[in-house]
Amino acid sequence: MKPEPRTFTTRLRVRYAETDQMGVVYHANYLIWFEVGRVEMLRALGFAYQRLESEEDCVLPVVEVNCRYRAPARYDEELTLETRLIASRGSVLKFGYALLRPEPPGIGDAARGTLLAEAVTTHVVVDRSLRKRSLPAAYAAVLAEALMPAPEDPMPDRLSGDRRSDTEQGGG
Amino acid sequence: MKPEPRTFTTRLRVRYAETDQMGVVYHANYLIWFEVGRVEMLRALGFAYQRLESEEDCVLPVVEVNCRYRAPARYDEELTLETRLIASRGSVLKFGYALLRPEPPGIGDAARGTLLAEAVTTHVVVDRSLRKRSLPAAYAAVLAEALMPAPEDPMPDRLSGDRRSDTEQGGG
Amino acid sequence: MKPEPRTFTTRLRVRYAETDQMGVVYHANYLIWFEVGRVEMLRALGFAYQRLESEEDCVLPVVEVNCRYRAPARYDEELTLETRLIASRGSVLKFGYALLRPEPPGIGDAARGTLLAEAVTTHVVVDRSLRKRSLPAAYAAVLAEALMPAPEDPMPDRLSGDRRSDTEQGGG
Amino acid sequence: MKPEPRTFTTRLRVRYAETDQMGVVYHANYLIWFEVGRVEMLRALGFAYQRLESEEDCVLPVVEVNCRYRAPARYDEELTLETRLIASRGSVLKFGYALLRPEPPGIGDAARGTLLAEAVTTHVVVDRSLRKRSLPAAYAAVLAEALMPAPEDPMPDRLSGDRRSDTEQGGG
Repeated sequence: MKPEPRTFTTRLRVRYAETDQMGVVYHANYLIWFEVGRVEMLRALGFAYQRLESEEDCVLPVVEVNCRYRAPARYDEELTLETRLIASRGSVLKFGYALLRPEPPGIGDAARGTLLAEAVTTHVVVDRSLRKRSLPAAYAAVLAEALMPAPEDPMPDRLSGDRRSDTEQGGG
Repeated sequence: MKPEPRTFTTRLRVRYAETDQMGVVYHANYLIWFEVGRVEMLRALGFAYQRLESEEDCVLPVVEVNCRYRAPARYDEELTLETRLIASRGSVLKFGYALLRPEPPGIGDAARGTLLAEAVTTHVVVDRSLRKRSLPAAYAAVLAEALMPAPEDPMPDRLSGDRRSDTEQGGG
Repeated sequence: MKPEPRTFTTRLRVRYAETDQMGVVYHANYLIWFEVGRVEMLRALGFAYQRLESEEDCVLPVVEVNCRYRAPARYDEELTLETRLIASRGSVLKFGYALLRPEPPGIGDAARGTLLAEAVTTHVVVDRSLRKRSLPAAYAAVLAEALMPAPEDPMPDRLSGDRRSDTEQGGG
Repeated sequence: MKPEPRTFTTRLRVRYAETDQMGVVYHANYLIWFEVGRVEMLRALGFAYQRLESEEDCVLPVVEVNCRYRAPARYDEELTLETRLIASRGSVLKFGYALLRPEPPGIGDAARGTLLAEAVTTHVVVDRSLRKRSLPAAYAAVLAEALMPAPEDPMPDRLSGDRRSDTEQGGG
């Protein structure tokens, strides 16, 4: 069985501003949270996204988003966002996300809680003039590490379907 | 050849608040624009989304978003958003979007300008307690009409690949 | 009696994304609308804010906001935003806003509808490095004109209390 | 000298979505942060804003915002938001905020860092139909406590000018 890439967990508290009159979180805000998860994952890897942009003239705009909303998120809930790098090849990066609401014992998935959303975002590496370029080598090395399994994390992965085919080409 | 559903066009002016420090529109804001296009399309059909919600206890949350970003949108640009209903079956609706920047002659697609993004959103019909239900008959009839081609609009469609398979099942 | 500066009117449709779970527009979004009113006022005067920024290295960040919320705005309402320049002296500009919901005869102010919010924003003229500078002369001339009363607009003004003291110093 | 009300501190990380093309945080987003500070302050006091709304039919809409922007906030900065209740009388509450960027020794205020913004928001207590009401007694008692000085916090306060006149009437 193929090893899983490392998962990075971020905690998010739902803001009032993020709700809409349906009484749940407005769907576009999930994309903002995924950005938070992505940046925090990179930070945990020692990868300063802000410096990549300001010092290396390198930005990672989103070129594709695919998101499935499974259950509503609500005001003031404290959520768990799991982020992982699922592909890195050439100028293209893909991240996978699982947004979860931790639950008391007996509700949802015992280990992780209720799955609220799953998503994949695709990014291209460009300079600030939006011309395609490659990642600086030091940053690429950090990302290669993120594609490796964490020794302490043999957990199966809900995003693996999408991830598996990507990392076959991209995990090298 | 299968007929195309009707296309509804909305104009949008990019707000300063919608940009980010990359100097382009932040990607989550496109989802807000798609919502505008959807509501304006329904309004053009005589379908008051606000009344559907307040009088019929019927809301249409997004359960899936797929969006491809082709070219950046920038501050103060006046954009064209083309929206169409691409499927309506049971409690599920799908809308397709093409976001375009009109161009002077000689740039981009002569007829429509530069394509900035393409997307599909999937919605379920639920009541305010988020239990699945079906659309009130009067509203369903309006949507059935939107799946029909406009007599005056034989234009080919960039979203057709996705649409075609959906309407095969859903266009009846 | 002192003459009133010209008033510029913008129409806004409330987006679903702008509501919150209280069922009304989230208060921070009014500031985004005021920005729209400001830019549209400048455009009506032939003043391209986007070019001021990209060609003249001149931006107008907000340094102070004062806003009173009088009545809630709701989803899908079509609102009227009245904007006027109420002071322009040196590197400081002040704009006043009245947000209104047009009403059928007999509700609210006969002429203008229900007042939803009033606000003043203060701006400084800076370059992109955020160093204080003055407006290019051509733009300053346009703003001086905006402080003049419109010949066809002798309407009294709900924002006049705040405006009057400012224009005494700034209207010259 | 009048004692100071307690100060509650919240940490915020600037999100990419919160920046604009000026390369700094868009000004409307500060209002969203103030809401976060307010709710976290209430939570620290044992006051569950979410339950106030869902169980007590009691909401606290903003009726006035006054905000001064002193220095720009930038992407990825970790900021400190100080929140305090500065008045509570009848159905009206006022909160004061100081947003700060902690600095290395030698930059800005030694104790607190650089002041980025100061603000006051005014709220009315209403039910969900937006009719004025008073706070449930248990919640009012918690707020009365927040107006008291913290024994361990004799720190002078930049927001005190505004606060002082309010608490003279409201601190009882």
